[in-house]
Amino acid sequence: MTTAATPRDAHGQPPQAPGYTGHKADHLDRLNKIEGQIRGISRMVTDDRYCIDVLTQITAATRALQEVALGLLDDHVRVCVTDTARTDPTHAEEKYTELNETLRRALRL
Amino acid sequence: MTTAATPRDAHGQPPQAPGYTGHKADHLDRLNKIEGQIRGISRMVTDDRYCIDVLTQITAATRALQEVALGLLDDHVRVCVTDTARTDPTHAEEKYTELNETLRRALRL
Amino acid sequence: MTTAATPRDAHGQPPQAPGYTGHKADHLDRLNKIEGQIRGISRMVTDDRYCIDVLTQITAATRALQEVALGLLDDHVRVCVTDTARTDPTHAEEKYTELNETLRRALRL
Amino acid sequence: MTTAATPRDAHGQPPQAPGYTGHKADHLDRLNKIEGQIRGISRMVTDDRYCIDVLTQITAATRALQEVALGLLDDHVRVCVTDTARTDPTHAEEKYTELNETLRRALRL
Repeated sequence: MTTAATPRDAHGQPPQAPGYTGHKADHLDRLNKIEGQIRGISRMVTDDRYCIDVLTQITAATRALQEVALGLLDDHVRVCVTDTARTDPTHAEEKYTELNETLRRALRL
Repeated sequence: MTTAATPRDAHGQPPQAPGYTGHKADHLDRLNKIEGQIRGISRMVTDDRYCIDVLTQITAATRALQEVALGLLDDHVRVCVTDTARTDPTHAEEKYTELNETLRRALRL
Repeated sequence: MTTAATPRDAHGQPPQAPGYTGHKADHLDRLNKIEGQIRGISRMVTDDRYCIDVLTQITAATRALQEVALGLLDDHVRVCVTDTARTDPTHAEEKYTELNETLRRALRL
Repeated sequence: MTTAATPRDAHGQPPQAPGYTGHKADHLDRLNKIEGQIRGISRMVTDDRYCIDVLTQITAATRALQEVALGLLDDHVRVCVTDTARTDPTHAEEKYTELNETLRRALRL
């Protein structure tokens, strides 16, 4: 995973608060729980637990991850996309394109 | 996550090696990487990284989880379902039903 | 399928052009192709074609449907959500909520 | 859509009844309903119906298609995969590989 890229804001300018600032603690809380779920799944595999039970937990963790994605998408549209459309219309097009590509990946197209 | 249930095998008898035994190390390796991915995503949120970059990593982690699920499904059909159908036909029906319910959840129906 | 509800616009007022007006012909073209795909799948089943070949075509049709959904989502955010946020901020909240619920269903959460 | 390939059975031999024979009428019934759903969606677009309402119907049609896929997968594992594993073990490997690739596409990996 490449997470080391220089932070960038909507316009390639110095970073500002991201759209999810108001829900940051909530997202981190969910992600911590998911990390625990993944650890639990590893433990199940280590303990030779039945395939179907492991699969059930993988589906639950996948769903929890998608919930975080949905929350971030909501924050992003409310804050980043709307603000850009309102205050910086010349950059709105790239926001829409970027959102579209993100939804394409999230919908696995 | 409820992972504490008594291990059970295909027939509700004392546990045997699960279908994924031959790929156990591989599954654990992938799960460890996913745990690292989730931790990386938490770090991105902590660091106020741009929403879209966080979403991209969530999609990557989701895909990696689904790869583990696919591997386990493959192991399960090859070993557990086939063995039961071959050696214990009276229990095959419950294997098929269980697989169907698992696929239903995996396909998110 | 309930498609008979009275058309409504963003604000519960008499209908206006929907966000996808500019891509209407394109969406209809894709939907016509998908209708043909579904008919082709029925024909495969009628002709006792091999399960896996039928499944491959169902996956293709599903993907094509999701492409239409992605196009409509793009139109909707660009036009309906943005316009409401810009010109009618008191109704923006309901737009965001509605989009969120739609994405939740599209992501099958 | 390429549906014209010569029918083939599990072993590349002359066609036999596919795994879904017992549910053929049920699958055709569902597919007919889906074809009607797609036609209804086209009509909604023609009538300039609100984007979100169109998206809701697309999600419903997608889910209905996935239900048919799940039914076919169930038939396929119960009949084709199991029969091959039981009566023709030398061809079982290709059945497993084929199922795996089909699930990979269905899970959109």
